[in-house]
Amino acid sequence: MYDDPGFFAEYANMPRSVQGLDAAPEWPVLRAMLPPLAGLRVVDLGCGFGWFSRWAAAEGAASVLGLDVSQRMLEVAVRETADPRITYRRADLDAVELDAGAFDLAYSSLALHYLVDVDRLLAGVRTALGPGGVLVASVEHPIYTAPSDPAFVSGPSGRPVWPVDRYLDRGRRVTDWLAPGVVKYHRTLSDYVGGLLAAGFTLTALEEWGPTDEQLAEHPEWAGERERPLFLLLSGVAATVAA
Amino acid sequence: MYDDPGFFAEYANMPRSVQGLDAAPEWPVLRAMLPPLAGLRVVDLGCGFGWFSRWAAAEGAASVLGLDVSQRMLEVAVRETADPRITYRRADLDAVELDAGAFDLAYSSLALHYLVDVDRLLAGVRTALGPGGVLVASVEHPIYTAPSDPAFVSGPSGRPVWPVDRYLDRGRRVTDWLAPGVVKYHRTLSDYVGGLLAAGFTLTALEEWGPTDEQLAEHPEWAGERERPLFLLLSGVAATVAA
Repeated sequence: MYDDPGFFAEYANMPRSVQGLDAAPEWPVLRAMLPPLAGLRVVDLGCGFGWFSRWAAAEGAASVLGLDVSQRMLEVAVRETADPRITYRRADLDAVELDAGAFDLAYSSLALHYLVDVDRLLAGVRTALGPGGVLVASVEHPIYTAPSDPAFVSGPSGRPVWPVDRYLDRGRRVTDWLAPGVVKYHRTLSDYVGGLLAAGFTLTALEEWGPTDEQLAEHPEWAGERERPLFLLLSGVAATVAA
Repeated sequence: MYDDPGFFAEYANMPRSVQGLDAAPEWPVLRAMLPPLAGLRVVDLGCGFGWFSRWAAAEGAASVLGLDVSQRMLEVAVRETADPRITYRRADLDAVELDAGAFDLAYSSLALHYLVDVDRLLAGVRTALGPGGVLVASVEHPIYTAPSDPAFVSGPSGRPVWPVDRYLDRGRRVTDWLAPGVVKYHRTLSDYVGGLLAAGFTLTALEEWGPTDEQLAEHPEWAGERERPLFLLLSGVAATVAA
């Protein structure tokens, strides 16, 4: 759907698309979960315009493989770098095969909630990382993806509330984010954590992003993001012996 | 508040109070997280009427220490057993001091959301468990404890929705559950998981309870429990080297 011209035009104009990592309000939390990048072999799962891939190379990564299903986004990513350590490849994360032991760090920003089968990818990532390899990922928070009608409404006391329903009803959700008919897959928080543990990772951090006081002072329009978490951020380390 | 006569009378009449573990719909999930009990030294944090303490002894635990702040509940618990392996002690979990290395399993059912400082207790539990010791706990789910008005309302499309607000606003929540003015402490899912990791546990399971199809067939009135999770269930193992 990132190759749909209407959607692409809208997405390409978002601050995080134009200005990169620093325009993504959750980036400081995600960055704090990352190990030092120097010398690491990195795979960027759902690399989009390649902002993270270029940042990782600039931080001293030995190599970066950026994977994305969107041809349009990859074309932009390729145009933006001449760094020989960075490679981009078109790949559907629901079908991709990664070489065993090929990476030290797997990173994924806001891509996994588009997948039909996250458990399959997590198992593949575990095999692609050597023991001690690190996974850092963000997804839309399950509280955000659950509702039939994902928009704030006025609550019983007049305050805005986020109308949660269908939380335990996993599966397809069709929303009108940036374009009509965008398909995501809702899963519960225990699905993400359980998938990570089942794949053979040890959980090292779990964060639920909301704006800091400083961010809120600069962006008062983000107040709603404190009422319910927008992003779930996870990190894990590949256990010495795979599960 | 469990010693308030009105609250106590209401609580004592709940199915889980009268019929014990099998009347708690989340018990099968929690039970599956437990290690074999034979020979273990168990502490039951918030033991209430002692249903779990008696079950643990029946399963072969070497000793069981049941702690609760409610004198009324402990009186019932003491009356219900003559097993010399079970000891009950009145203790406020926000202040309790546990002996280092004194236990192999710490269990807590629906008590931690009453505590002002869960991190303090988790650190104490970690010290009270030897390396490899296990913690299994249930709490009211953060989605359940967050709202200003914790009751289903009719959503935009007419379906019942759970009105989430103040999710990232940790702290006191006053509800009218069984009696007016019951005080609980809301914390986020990342607070619980982060507290467990910071205390030196490795997370081994995270579940969000909702009724199974079988439970729903028997209790159609529980349908709402699928719209948002009621309980969060966690287990961890004390890391070999404390954090």
